[in-house]
Amino acid sequence: MSTEAETLPRGGALPVSDYLSQLIAVIRAEDTHGSWEGKPDAEILADFIVTREERREIPIICDPDPDLLWRVERFYDAVALLLERRTGAQAAQMSKITHEGFGRIVLISGRLVVLSRHVRDIHRFGFETFAKLADTGEAMTRDAAEMIARFPETARA
Amino acid sequence: MSTEAETLPRGGALPVSDYLSQLIAVIRAEDTHGSWEGKPDAEILADFIVTREERREIPIICDPDPDLLWRVERFYDAVALLLERRTGAQAAQMSKITHEGFGRIVLISGRLVVLSRHVRDIHRFGFETFAKLADTGEAMTRDAAEMIARFPETARA
Repeated sequence: MSTEAETLPRGGALPVSDYLSQLIAVIRAEDTHGSWEGKPDAEILADFIVTREERREIPIICDPDPDLLWRVERFYDAVALLLERRTGAQAAQMSKITHEGFGRIVLISGRLVVLSRHVRDIHRFGFETFAKLADTGEAMTRDAAEMIARFPETARA
Repeated sequence: MSTEAETLPRGGALPVSDYLSQLIAVIRAEDTHGSWEGKPDAEILADFIVTREERREIPIICDPDPDLLWRVERFYDAVALLLERRTGAQAAQMSKITHEGFGRIVLISGRLVVLSRHVRDIHRFGFETFAKLADTGEAMTRDAAEMIARFPETARA
Protein backbone atom coordinates (compact mmCIF):
# COMPACT_ATOMS: atom_id res chain seq x y z
CA MET A 1 0.00 0.00 0.00
CA SER A 2 2.52 2.61 1.15
CA THR A 3 5.60 3.23 -0.90
CA GLU A 4 7.62 2.47 2.23
CA ALA A 5 6.74 -1.22 1.96
CA GLU A 6 8.12 -1.35 -1.53
CA THR A 7 11.45 0.14 -0.61
CA LEU A 8 11.97 -2.10 2.45
CA PRO A 9 14.47 -4.92 2.00
CA ARG A 10 13.35 -8.53 1.65
CA GLY A 11 11.91 -9.69 4.99
CA GLY A 12 11.02 -6.13 5.99
CA ALA A 13 12.58 -4.15 8.79
CA LEU A 14 14.48 -5.99 11.50
CA PRO A 15 12.47 -5.42 14.69
CA VAL A 16 14.02 -5.02 18.13
CA SER A 17 13.38 -8.43 19.67
CA ASP A 18 14.95 -10.53 22.42
CA TYR A 19 14.32 -13.59 20.31
CA LEU A 20 16.04 -12.21 17.20
CA SER A 21 19.02 -11.03 19.25
CA GLN A 22 19.33 -14.53 20.67
CA LEU A 23 19.04 -16.18 17.27
CA ILE A 24 21.68 -13.85 15.82
CA ALA A 25 23.99 -14.65 18.76
CA VAL A 26 23.45 -18.41 18.24
CA ILE A 27 24.40 -18.15 14.59
CA ARG A 28 27.34 -15.78 15.09
CA ALA A 29 28.69 -18.17 17.75
CA GLU A 30 29.27 -20.70 14.97
CA ASP A 31 31.38 -18.26 13.00
CA THR A 32 34.65 -19.36 14.59
CA HIS A 33 36.83 -17.79 11.90
CA GLY A 34 35.17 -14.39 12.09
CA SER A 35 34.27 -14.43 8.41
CA TRP A 36 30.80 -12.99 9.09
CA GLU A 37 32.04 -10.16 11.27
CA GLY A 38 31.31 -7.52 8.67
CA LYS A 39 27.93 -9.02 7.80
CA PRO A 40 24.89 -7.06 9.02
CA ASP A 41 22.32 -8.94 11.16
CA ALA A 42 19.71 -8.91 8.40
CA GLU A 43 22.10 -10.83 6.19
CA ILE A 44 22.87 -13.33 8.95
CA LEU A 45 19.14 -14.09 9.12
CA ALA A 46 18.41 -13.77 5.40
CA ASP A 47 17.90 -17.51 4.81
CA PHE A 48 15.13 -17.64 7.42
CA ILE A 49 13.01 -15.53 5.09
CA VAL A 50 10.86 -17.43 2.60
CA THR A 51 8.25 -15.39 0.77
CA ARG A 52 4.89 -16.76 -0.28
CA GLU A 53 6.02 -17.03 -3.89
CA GLU A 54 9.23 -18.81 -2.94
CA ARG A 55 7.35 -21.21 -0.70
CA ARG A 56 5.15 -22.32 -3.56
CA GLU A 57 8.16 -23.06 -5.72
CA ILE A 58 10.05 -25.19 -3.18
CA PRO A 59 9.69 -28.86 -4.09
CA ILE A 60 8.86 -31.18 -1.20
CA ILE A 61 9.90 -34.41 -2.86
CA CYS A 62 13.60 -34.52 -2.07
CA ASP A 63 15.37 -35.08 1.24
CA PRO A 64 15.35 -31.90 3.31
CA ASP A 65 18.50 -29.88 2.69
CA PRO A 66 21.11 -30.13 5.52
CA ASP A 67 21.38 -26.31 5.58
CA LEU A 68 17.66 -26.12 6.17
CA LEU A 69 17.78 -28.66 9.02
CA TRP A 70 20.66 -26.63 10.45
CA ARG A 71 18.44 -23.51 10.41
CA VAL A 72 15.56 -25.36 12.07
CA GLU A 73 17.93 -26.47 14.85
CA ARG A 74 19.28 -22.96 15.35
CA PHE A 75 15.72 -21.64 15.50
CA TYR A 76 14.88 -23.99 18.42
CA ASP A 77 18.32 -23.50 20.03
CA ALA A 78 17.50 -19.80 20.26
CA VAL A 79 14.13 -20.60 21.90
CA ALA A 80 15.95 -22.85 24.41
CA LEU A 81 18.59 -20.24 25.25
CA LEU A 82 16.12 -17.38 25.62
CA LEU A 83 14.03 -19.66 27.84
CA GLU A 84 17.09 -20.34 29.98
CA ARG A 85 17.82 -16.63 30.34
CA ARG A 86 14.24 -16.00 31.44
CA THR A 87 13.54 -19.01 33.65
CA GLY A 88 16.92 -20.55 34.47
CA ALA A 89 15.74 -23.89 33.06
CA GLN A 90 18.05 -25.60 30.59
CA ALA A 91 16.33 -27.35 27.71
CA ALA A 92 17.67 -29.87 25.23
CA GLN A 93 16.34 -30.22 21.72
CA MET A 94 15.29 -33.49 20.10
CA SER A 95 13.73 -33.97 16.72
CA LYS A 96 12.47 -36.79 14.58
CA ILE A 97 12.00 -35.70 11.00
CA THR A 98 11.38 -38.14 8.17
CA HIS A 99 12.83 -37.85 4.70
CA GLU A 100 9.41 -36.60 3.61
CA GLY A 101 9.79 -33.61 5.91
CA PHE A 102 7.22 -34.65 8.53
CA GLY A 103 8.03 -35.03 12.17
CA ARG A 104 8.18 -33.71 15.65
CA ILE A 105 10.51 -31.36 17.50
CA VAL A 106 10.63 -31.14 21.29
CA LEU A 107 12.50 -29.17 23.92
CA ILE A 108 13.03 -31.12 27.13
CA SER A 109 13.92 -29.65 30.51
CA GLY A 110 14.43 -32.19 33.28
CA ARG A 111 11.50 -34.58 32.78
CA LEU A 112 9.27 -31.94 31.22
CA VAL A 113 8.54 -31.48 27.52
CA VAL A 114 8.46 -27.67 27.60
CA LEU A 115 7.75 -27.37 23.89
CA SER A 116 6.39 -29.85 21.37
CA ARG A 117 5.77 -29.11 17.71
CA HIS A 118 4.60 -31.42 14.99
CA VAL A 119 6.05 -30.24 11.72
CA ARG A 120 5.20 -30.94 8.10
CA ASP A 121 6.62 -29.58 4.86
CA ILE A 122 9.84 -28.86 6.72
CA HIS A 123 11.29 -28.20 3.26
CA ARG A 124 9.37 -24.92 3.32
CA PHE A 125 10.55 -23.84 6.78
CA GLY A 126 10.83 -20.08 6.80
CA PHE A 127 9.05 -16.84 7.59
CA GLU A 128 7.64 -14.10 5.39
CA THR A 129 9.18 -11.31 7.41
CA PHE A 130 11.67 -10.79 10.23
CA ALA A 131 8.75 -9.56 12.33
CA LYS A 132 6.99 -12.91 11.81
CA LEU A 133 10.18 -14.80 12.71
CA ALA A 134 10.55 -12.72 15.88
CA ASP A 135 6.89 -13.20 16.88
CA THR A 136 7.01 -16.96 16.34
CA GLY A 137 10.18 -17.44 18.37
CA GLU A 138 8.88 -15.15 21.09
CA ALA A 139 5.53 -16.98 21.27
CA MET A 140 7.23 -20.37 21.54
CA THR A 141 9.53 -19.14 24.31
CA ARG A 142 6.48 -17.80 26.17
CA ASP A 143 4.62 -21.12 25.77
CA ALA A 144 7.65 -23.00 27.08
CA ALA A 145 7.99 -20.68 30.08
CA GLU A 146 4.30 -21.18 30.89
CA MET A 147 4.76 -24.94 30.77
CA ILE A 148 7.61 -24.65 33.28
CA ALA A 149 5.47 -22.46 35.54
CA ARG A 150 2.73 -25.11 35.34
CA PHE A 151 4.95 -28.11 36.12
CA PRO A 152 8.00 -26.73 37.95
CA GLU A 153 8.80 -30.00 39.74
CA THR A 154 8.79 -32.04 36.55
CA ALA A 155 11.19 -29.52 34.99
CA ARG A 156 13.52 -29.91 37.97
CA ALA A 157 13.31 -33.73 38.04
CA MET B 1 29.76 -74.88 35.74
CA SER B 2 26.88 -77.28 35.12
CA THR B 3 26.73 -79.15 31.87
CA GLU B 4 23.24 -77.72 31.36
CA ALA B 5 24.71 -74.29 30.62
CA GLU B 6 26.84 -75.75 27.87
CA THR B 7 23.96 -77.44 26.11
CA LEU B 8 21.65 -74.41 26.26
CA PRO B 9 21.21 -72.55 22.98
CA ARG B 10 22.88 -69.17 22.40
CA GLY B 11 21.22 -66.60 24.65
CA GLY B 12 20.19 -69.25 27.16
CA ALA B 13 16.65 -70.33 27.93
CA LEU B 14 13.80 -68.02 26.96
CA PRO B 15 12.23 -66.96 30.26
CA VAL B 16 8.51 -66.34 30.74
CA SER B 17 8.35 -62.54 30.70
CA ASP B 18 5.70 -59.93 29.93
CA TYR B 19 8.39 -57.84 28.33
CA LEU B 20 9.66 -60.57 26.02
CA SER B 21 6.09 -61.48 25.00
CA GLN B 22 5.52 -57.84 24.11
CA LEU B 23 8.76 -57.58 22.16
CA ILE B 24 7.97 -60.75 20.23
CA ALA B 25 4.50 -59.39 19.43
CA VAL B 26 5.99 -56.08 18.23
CA ILE B 27 8.35 -57.88 15.87
CA ARG B 28 5.81 -60.43 14.60
CA ALA B 29 3.43 -57.54 13.86
CA GLU B 30 5.86 -56.40 11.17
CA ASP B 31 5.77 -59.79 9.48
CA THR B 32 2.90 -58.83 7.18
CA HIS B 33 3.53 -61.70 4.77
CA GLY B 34 3.60 -64.36 7.45
CA SER B 35 7.06 -65.53 6.45
CA TRP B 36 8.16 -65.89 10.08
CA GLU B 37 5.11 -67.89 11.15
CA GLY B 38 7.08 -71.10 11.51
CA LYS B 39 9.96 -69.37 13.29
CA PRO B 40 10.27 -70.07 17.01
CA ASP B 41 10.35 -67.09 19.39
CA ALA B 42 14.01 -67.60 20.24
CA GLU B 43 14.85 -67.17 16.57
CA ILE B 44 12.73 -64.03 16.29
CA LEU B 45 14.82 -62.53 19.10
CA ALA B 46 18.16 -64.06 18.12
CA ASP B 47 19.70 -60.79 16.86
CA PHE B 48 19.16 -59.15 20.25
CA ILE B 49 21.79 -61.50 21.65
CA VAL B 50 25.37 -60.28 21.54
CA THR B 51 27.87 -62.28 23.55
CA ARG B 52 30.85 -60.76 25.29
CA GLU B 53 33.19 -62.08 22.60
CA GLU B 54 31.02 -60.78 19.79
CA ARG B 55 30.76 -57.37 21.46
CA ARG B 56 34.52 -57.00 21.51
CA GLU B 57 34.73 -57.73 17.81
CA ILE B 58 32.10 -55.24 16.68
CA PRO B 59 33.79 -52.19 15.18
CA ILE B 60 32.42 -48.84 16.31
CA ILE B 61 33.86 -46.76 13.51
CA CYS B 62 31.16 -47.12 10.84
CA ASP B 63 27.65 -45.70 10.75
CA PRO B 64 25.33 -47.79 12.89
CA ASP B 65 23.65 -50.50 10.83
CA PRO B 66 19.97 -49.74 9.93
CA ASP B 67 18.98 -53.24 11.14
CA LEU B 68 20.54 -52.45 14.49
CA LEU B 69 18.71 -49.11 14.77
CA TRP B 70 15.54 -51.00 13.86
CA ARG B 71 16.14 -53.38 16.79
CA VAL B 72 16.81 -50.50 19.18
CA GLU B 73 13.49 -48.94 18.13
CA ARG B 74 11.60 -52.20 18.58
CA PHE B 75 13.17 -52.62 22.02
CA TYR B 76 11.77 -49.25 23.16
CA ASP B 77 8.48 -49.77 21.31
CA ALA B 78 7.97 -52.87 23.45
CA VAL B 79 8.68 -50.85 26.61
CA ALA B 80 6.13 -48.24 25.48
CA LEU B 81 3.44 -50.83 24.71
CA LEU B 82 3.91 -52.78 27.93
CA LEU B 83 3.77 -49.46 29.79
CA GLU B 84 0.49 -48.66 28.06
CA ARG B 85 -0.99 -52.02 29.01
CA ARG B 86 -0.01 -51.47 32.63
CA THR B 87 -0.76 -47.78 33.11
CA GLY B 88 -2.99 -46.75 30.19
CA ALA B 89 -0.51 -44.02 29.25
CA GLN B 90 0.55 -43.87 25.62
CA ALA B 91 4.18 -43.01 25.03
CA ALA B 92 5.97 -41.94 21.86
CA GLN B 93 9.60 -42.68 21.20
CA MET B 94 12.16 -40.11 20.06
CA SER B 95 15.86 -40.61 19.59
CA LYS B 96 18.85 -38.60 18.56
CA ILE B 97 21.78 -40.83 17.71
CA THR B 98 24.91 -39.55 16.01
CA HIS B 99 26.83 -41.40 13.36
CA GLU B 100 29.36 -42.23 16.07
CA GLY B 101 26.67 -44.16 17.94
CA PHE B 102 26.19 -41.74 20.82
CA GLY B 103 22.90 -40.18 21.71
CA ARG B 104 19.73 -40.10 23.67
CA ILE B 105 16.47 -42.01 23.52
CA VAL B 106 13.31 -40.83 25.26
CA LEU B 107 9.74 -42.01 25.68
CA ILE B 108 7.27 -39.17 26.01
CA SER B 109 3.75 -39.41 27.39
CA GLY B 110 1.77 -36.18 27.32
CA ARG B 111 4.26 -33.61 28.54
CA LEU B 112 6.24 -36.11 30.62
CA VAL B 113 9.52 -37.76 29.68
CA VAL B 114 8.72 -41.16 31.19
CA LEU B 115 12.03 -42.68 30.17
CA SER B 116 15.33 -41.11 29.18
CA ARG B 117 18.47 -43.01 28.28
CA HIS B 118 21.78 -41.69 27.11
CA VAL B 119 23.38 -44.29 24.88
CA ARG B 120 26.89 -44.84 23.65
CA ASP B 121 28.44 -47.56 21.54
CA ILE B 122 25.02 -48.17 20.05
CA HIS B 123 26.85 -50.37 17.53
CA ARG B 124 27.18 -52.91 20.32
CA PHE B 125 23.51 -52.86 21.36
CA GLY B 126 22.57 -56.31 22.53
CA PHE B 127 22.23 -58.60 25.53
CA GLU B 128 24.21 -61.60 26.66
CA THR B 129 21.14 -63.67 27.38
CA PHE B 130 17.39 -63.59 26.86
CA ALA B 131 17.07 -63.32 30.64
CA LYS B 132 19.16 -60.14 30.57
CA LEU B 133 17.07 -58.74 27.72
CA ALA B 134 13.87 -59.51 29.66
CA ASP B 135 15.20 -57.96 32.89
CA THR B 136 16.35 -54.78 31.16
CA GLY B 137 13.06 -54.23 29.34
CA GLU B 138 11.12 -55.01 32.50
CA ALA B 139 13.22 -52.62 34.62
CA MET B 140 12.77 -49.79 32.10
CA THR B 141 9.01 -50.34 32.00
CA ARG B 142 8.91 -50.23 35.79
CA ASP B 143 10.97 -47.00 35.87
CA ALA B 144 8.63 -45.42 33.34
CA ALA B 145 5.54 -46.48 35.31
CA GLU B 146 7.05 -44.97 38.47
CA MET B 147 7.67 -41.70 36.66
CA ILE B 148 4.00 -41.62 35.62
CA ALA B 149 2.93 -42.31 39.20
CA ARG B 150 5.16 -39.43 40.34
CA PHE B 151 3.92 -36.87 37.80
CA PRO B 152 0.45 -38.05 36.69
CA GLU B 153 -0.76 -34.59 35.65
CA THR B 154 2.24 -33.94 33.43
CA ALA B 155 1.63 -37.28 31.72
CA ARG B 156 -1.98 -36.30 31.07
CA ALA B 157 -1.14 -32.77 29.84
